[in-house]
Amino acid sequence: MRAGDDPVALLGEYGLDRLTDEVNRLWAGARELLHESSVVFEPPVATCTKICCLALNYVAHAEESGLEVPPEPVLFFKPPSALTGHNRPVTAPARTKHLEHEVELAVVVGSTVRDLPAERWREAVAGYTVINDMTARDLQLANIARNAPWDQAKGFDTFAPAGPYLATVDEVPDPQNLELTLEVDGEVRQRANTKQMVFGIPELVADLSDGMTLLPGDLVATGTIAGIAPLKEGDVMRATVQGVGTLINRVDFRSA
Amino acid sequence: MRAGDDPVALLGEYGLDRLTDEVNRLWAGARELLHESSVVFEPPVATCTKICCLALNYVAHAEESGLEVPPEPVLFFKPPSALTGHNRPVTAPARTKHLEHEVELAVVVGSTVRDLPAERWREAVAGYTVINDMTARDLQLANIARNAPWDQAKGFDTFAPAGPYLATVDEVPDPQNLELTLEVDGEVRQRANTKQMVFGIPELVADLSDGMTLLPGDLVATGTIAGIAPLKEGDVMRATVQGVGTLINRVDFRSA
Repeated sequence: MRAGDDPVALLGEYGLDRLTDEVNRLWAGARELLHESSVVFEPPVATCTKICCLALNYVAHAEESGLEVPPEPVLFFKPPSALTGHNRPVTAPARTKHLEHEVELAVVVGSTVRDLPAERWREAVAGYTVINDMTARDLQLANIARNAPWDQAKGFDTFAPAGPYLATVDEVPDPQNLELTLEVDGEVRQRANTKQMVFGIPELVADLSDGMTLLPGDLVATGTIAGIAPLKEGDVMRATVQGVGTLINRVDFRSA
Repeated sequence: MRAGDDPVALLGEYGLDRLTDEVNRLWAGARELLHESSVVFEPPVATCTKICCLALNYVAHAEESGLEVPPEPVLFFKPPSALTGHNRPVTAPARTKHLEHEVELAVVVGSTVRDLPAERWREAVAGYTVINDMTARDLQLANIARNAPWDQAKGFDTFAPAGPYLATVDEVPDPQNLELTLEVDGEVRQRANTKQMVFGIPELVADLSDGMTLLPGDLVATGTIAGIAPLKEGDVMRATVQGVGTLINRVDFRSA
């Protein structure tokens, strides 16, 4: 994209995928020109229609949750209104006293796909980002105890911090061998590797797109790893996926 | 809106709410000029970011599900990609053999609200429509049996038929006293009244907006009533909410 080009005209000329490539190329250059501290980070997707989250996709996390690893991928949704960006606060509503972090690799969908076979998974993917699947554990456990769905406990505003950037497929040649860590004020709470996923990205893309259209900007949060733990007011979470980025968010209890 | 007016200019001049009023007024006139059979119905909202669905919000439905009525509203999400319109087929993916209907009154959100007190609920509401919360019951029950979330069983494409129209707040002065019915090929399967909701619309708006932003075009599906039952290929579902509309969809099993 050249300075002065009209993105809408480019969109018409090239289609969304090409425009995305151009914007990412521009952005890759801009990263070197801006200090992070001078930037207000928005979520790495602007057109998200759904956040598809995988439950129990790492054995050690299923074990710490006291649940069996499911025989097929298990999905729940977060709404786009839960998204927030790097360096933004995660704000817990007053109704929860027990907030927990869940670092995950997120796949950023780049095209409109449905019923995509596993071997064609790359057609769905624009790139990757880091997501922290914030959870009001007290509200979730209360609903689990009564066999009721618990989407609300994970759906509040700011409960899907993501970013800082979209790492392109070229920047992440092997998404299935990346170390994930979550640090709170310098202490490592979660650490594992994406090669330990129960269902890998090809199977996830195939399963999710079986009967459900994935759209550009949709996110697939591929499941958290062992080490989930409570947070307190002012905690600073650093969620890192190797080669993808480090997402930093501070905890803000509105009720405090 | 006058013929020849530019909707985008009107949007700038009046804001979205006013434009919506104008479009609805125009549409109310158009209904009398068009035969439904000549119209392809889109979903009644174009900008939906989330479908907030209430579980177990009628006592008789909780009883038939073998679950207790919860002490507070219980929420799950459907993605906007599940929406379809009046007279369109509901298409079950091959992975389910057990599809069920769930008629509900849906609240159409008309403005951006958060932390809205119950007594101000009307500020959130543009109007009402009919929704049929289609459910792959076999997939849902399999996940319930393993204490896993079951959003996928309700999130497939076409699993949120809605419409035919958006009935405005002026057209539905008392949403808490409307008969709901669901007929399959002329047989009444579900029948109740919105006055039997456990949590009424003011409480639902207050609860959902507590910590979560509701956006124009978002839908709140207020829960289904007793009488859920399996469907077979070719069944025609007529979901009616008194004074709001009759939503008709035919069942299509892709695996058949």
